Amino acid sequence: MRATVIYGERDVRIDVVPEPVLSSGIDAIVRVVAACVCGSDLWSYRGIAPTAKPRRIGHEFVGIVEEVGDNVNIIKVGDFVIAPFYDCDMTCANCVNGTSTSCLNGGWWGADDRAGGFADGAQGERVRVPHADGTLVATPEQPDPALIPSLLTLSDVMGTGHHAAVSAGVTAGSTVVVVGDGAVGLCAVLAATRLGASRVVAMSRHADRQEIARQFGATDIVEQRGDEGIQIIKDMFDGIGPDCVLECVGTAESMDQAIRSARPGGMVGYVGVPTGGAEFPIRALFDSNVGVNGGVASVRNYIEELLPEVLAGTINPGIVFDLELPLAEVAEAYAAMDERRATKVLLRP
Amino acid sequence: MRATVIYGERDVRIDVVPEPVLSSGIDAIVRVVAACVCGSDLWSYRGIAPTAKPRRIGHEFVGIVEEVGDNVNIIKVGDFVIAPFYDCDMTCANCVNGTSTSCLNGGWWGADDRAGGFADGAQGERVRVPHADGTLVATPEQPDPALIPSLLTLSDVMGTGHHAAVSAGVTAGSTVVVVGDGAVGLCAVLAATRLGASRVVAMSRHADRQEIARQFGATDIVEQRGDEGIQIIKDMFDGIGPDCVLECVGTAESMDQAIRSARPGGMVGYVGVPTGGAEFPIRALFDSNVGVNGGVASVRNYIEELLPEVLAGTINPGIVFDLELPLAEVAEAYAAMDERRATKVLLRP
Repeated sequence: MRATVIYGERDVRIDVVPEPVLSSGIDAIVRVVAACVCGSDLWSYRGIAPTAKPRRIGHEFVGIVEEVGDNVNIIKVGDFVIAPFYDCDMTCANCVNGTSTSCLNGGWWGADDRAGGFADGAQGERVRVPHADGTLVATPEQPDPALIPSLLTLSDVMGTGHHAAVSAGVTAGSTVVVVGDGAVGLCAVLAATRLGASRVVAMSRHADRQEIARQFGATDIVEQRGDEGIQIIKDMFDGIGPDCVLECVGTAESMDQAIRSARPGGMVGYVGVPTGGAEFPIRALFDSNVGVNGGVASVRNYIEELLPEVLAGTINPGIVFDLELPLAEVAEAYAAMDERRATKVLLRP
Repeated sequence: MRATVIYGERDVRIDVVPEPVLSSGIDAIVRVVAACVCGSDLWSYRGIAPTAKPRRIGHEFVGIVEEVGDNVNIIKVGDFVIAPFYDCDMTCANCVNGTSTSCLNGGWWGADDRAGGFADGAQGERVRVPHADGTLVATPEQPDPALIPSLLTLSDVMGTGHHAAVSAGVTAGSTVVVVGDGAVGLCAVLAATRLGASRVVAMSRHADRQEIARQFGATDIVEQRGDEGIQIIKDMFDGIGPDCVLECVGTAESMDQAIRSARPGGMVGYVGVPTGGAEFPIRALFDSNVGVNGGVASVRNYIEELLPEVLAGTINPGIVFDLELPLAEVAEAYAAMDERRATKVLLRP
């Protein structure tokens, strides 16, 4: 089959790779209907996270189940399924606690899973899913094709934005600022709105993303950053700042922006993959009672909650996809996101 | 009047200082009935936080109101009052949000307050309280003298232990580990028990403190630290660790112990004043979804909740005081705590 392989900096290719084969009895083979490129894939693409040797890439997909192992009981051949950006059993103590990204038996796409055997990267034609019954969520029926972009966001960006909001404790009446206007930041705006925030400020400098933020419920847009941006934010909220700040970038600058924007006693929910090596400043956090909570988002635990609203059209996170390409043009998909010509690219095998 | 002055490392003395005088119209003069020495005072006493010039010290006290300013409306002459370890107006946005330690008009004992004028340190005979109506909480009537130690803990250690538990999200059924067996750590055990924790582990190596922890509801004691201690804790909770860890020391070692003990998705509530300069390790927190929340405890906001239980004898945090001395022996009070001959010393002017 064909699948995407990253060879090094700005070098992703479609290669012919072995077809996935059932191996564990609890796995499934899924034909990918739609996949996408993640902002975190760009860390490898840009060479910031070096690629030691060529490897399969991609971790977000939806598709149709083609085969299941003998001990798969929930997922059936023909199901339309959503896969989170990792695999998990949903039965271990961490999964049951809601932290399936720390599944005691789980693993990552494009790598050998802990039970042995390769779990394919998602930017390809097919994927072997190690823990099919835990990892995959089937829709009740074959979905309207128009819903596929929004369903695909449940693999990562919508669940990750939701995790930022939940981690920051957003609830009815909360005041919220979102740092980052990528697909995750935009989904965080939608998540905060959905959870009942009374005011949601999107920090964004791009007109097209500001427009999506407003569609997702942003009440205000702030273009300024640094000290100027913080002062504007403080002034918007009694001079002290908002209850919750959702950090959806991962750089030292964006985290500093987030922490210094929150009101005393407020909370930063963060989901941006940390880059740049800066640690959390304990003394500043201690003095202001600003908490930090979040991490690699357990999106699998959120799919059941969010899926009905996607199917009903109540939320439409799929509009974060502003470019769609065939899998064969994956190199252009990466380039378009790298050069900020696209916010998020959907790939069709 | 007589009051404690710290001159430098291991040098605290009783000096004759000016009597406090009303100055702002919203202040009060309180005669100190009981004060105490805080673990955080030891950072100065030990020279870890150097003393640049002699200064008044002490920040926990209860007493009787002797005079009030013309614009004091709630607090009355003759009231028995509890003062938190700072002053605050309880009307600014931060106080209203529950974070009175960030009061926009507040200040610290033993320093000039923001409205001008000196607020005395608490280890003395009298204190000028800048924002009397905000800062002080009066008991409904003159309390039984036997309750004074427990009432005094509402100035700091009981409220601070409670803040650790609240910041970590302790609720009915939570599993909790407390790092630190000083007065704050012991009060954190009591706070977690009071909030309904199903299991509370006290990490302690001292038999006398273990005994208090058990009286406060600790279900288990762990004496080991470091990797060995973490492994024991993990094994006690499904191999993954507890929901909540309360960090009540402030050193790099104790914070590392706390963070690595929490289960994935768990929360560290911290109240130990950070010393040693180590920052929070963002990548480890991100990967495990362990949050950190807490800081300088807004104990004033907790007094109304905790006071009725102290007055009713439902909770008895005052047993953390294991030595009582006259104010004249303040130097011995510091030495006893420094040398760990006492957990916490109560001073009577």
